[in-house]
Amino acid sequence: MTGTLYGTLYGLGVGPGDPELVTLKALRILRACPVIAYLAANESESFARSIVAEHLPGGQTELAIRIDMGAPASEGQAIYDRAAEDLAEHLAAGRDVAMPCEGDPFFYGSFQYLFTRLAGRFPVRVVPGVSSLTATAAAVPVPLTSRNDVLTVLPAPLDAAVLKERLAATDAAAVMKLGRHFDKVRAVIDELGLTARALYVERAGLPEQRVLPLAEVRPPVPYFSMILVPR
Amino acid sequence: MTGTLYGTLYGLGVGPGDPELVTLKALRILRACPVIAYLAANESESFARSIVAEHLPGGQTELAIRIDMGAPASEGQAIYDRAAEDLAEHLAAGRDVAMPCEGDPFFYGSFQYLFTRLAGRFPVRVVPGVSSLTATAAAVPVPLTSRNDVLTVLPAPLDAAVLKERLAATDAAAVMKLGRHFDKVRAVIDELGLTARALYVERAGLPEQRVLPLAEVRPPVPYFSMILVPR
Repeated sequence: MTGTLYGTLYGLGVGPGDPELVTLKALRILRACPVIAYLAANESESFARSIVAEHLPGGQTELAIRIDMGAPASEGQAIYDRAAEDLAEHLAAGRDVAMPCEGDPFFYGSFQYLFTRLAGRFPVRVVPGVSSLTATAAAVPVPLTSRNDVLTVLPAPLDAAVLKERLAATDAAAVMKLGRHFDKVRAVIDELGLTARALYVERAGLPEQRVLPLAEVRPPVPYFSMILVPR
Repeated sequence: MTGTLYGTLYGLGVGPGDPELVTLKALRILRACPVIAYLAANESESFARSIVAEHLPGGQTELAIRIDMGAPASEGQAIYDRAAEDLAEHLAAGRDVAMPCEGDPFFYGSFQYLFTRLAGRFPVRVVPGVSSLTATAAAVPVPLTSRNDVLTVLPAPLDAAVLKERLAATDAAAVMKLGRHFDKVRAVIDELGLTARALYVERAGLPEQRVLPLAEVRPPVPYFSMILVPR
């Protein structure tokens, strides 16, 4: 749709949390757009916005998309529908909209819900970011994969049986989004005899980062935590 | 080893190729180190160095580690042994060494061969970078994974039977390092009936980037190419 007078929607990966892990490209685009939009859990500060807060020039229109994390999925869809229409108004008026996204926009990111609603109607560009996956390996630090290793990324909410099957069949693994699923995941890793290889990382790259052998973790653990089972 | 007079070895992820996809952190450290070291295939310019070339301040000692891509593995090990000793000399003398690495240092990166040789002797810090995985999804652009998707990353040199089994058991997949393995990988994807979903991306994020439906690709393809099978 180049050549139209529409604005462009930019999905900007801004990395796992450290404001210094933003790329030059995300920063340039973020600063140049008249409108920025971001997701925020109800009442809370937006994590994505907090990552780039120190880089914002001021004077931009800001649009917070408030998500109720506890709400049913249908309600979430309605929020994205409305948010897409809010963004569409700016885009239709020719204003570029930058959407900073924690980590990478397409790696388990919520940006895709706006992407799927708007990509057919307006120009959309995505700038990849440092994902929590590689940030976590760097935080330890431990090599994640090499040569011909198979790497499997598993969200912790999956059933124990699925987690077990996938963990047994891979060379290296990362289990994300632990939160209240921690005990289940640790039990599976124990059953497979992988505990000695497993590392727990919380808030990789942030000042409050914690790195522990899996056996030493005392739950509860936050959502933004990960278990790595490196090669 | 904080508190010693040793220099620190920094593994710096500098992203998939676009010099603008370097992070502020990698850039700051890269510019501040008196010594930079990088891998280069024999005779060729170093890809990692080319990504950051425009950011180098000049006046740094440069150490090119020449790898013969066609050589037997034992010879490769000997090269890493020698390179580690060269780096160790600088580190022991208190000089920080920055090693820019394409993509992310621990995501199928060669930095780990130096990390494993030096991490016990000197302070080592790793700065994660934008990996080719998320850069490729952004290039299409197509969401890679969402919610509770299982993501499997597969190096193309694996046997066809292994590729087939792993591709059949995942929600989303990326097959890396295609090169001369392209025909084998495409045949497997065909057998699984996944060709319509599969996207081919070459040199993601670079000016010569190519994005094609898998069915339209005519080999030969380069090593730096990937097939995505998104959710």
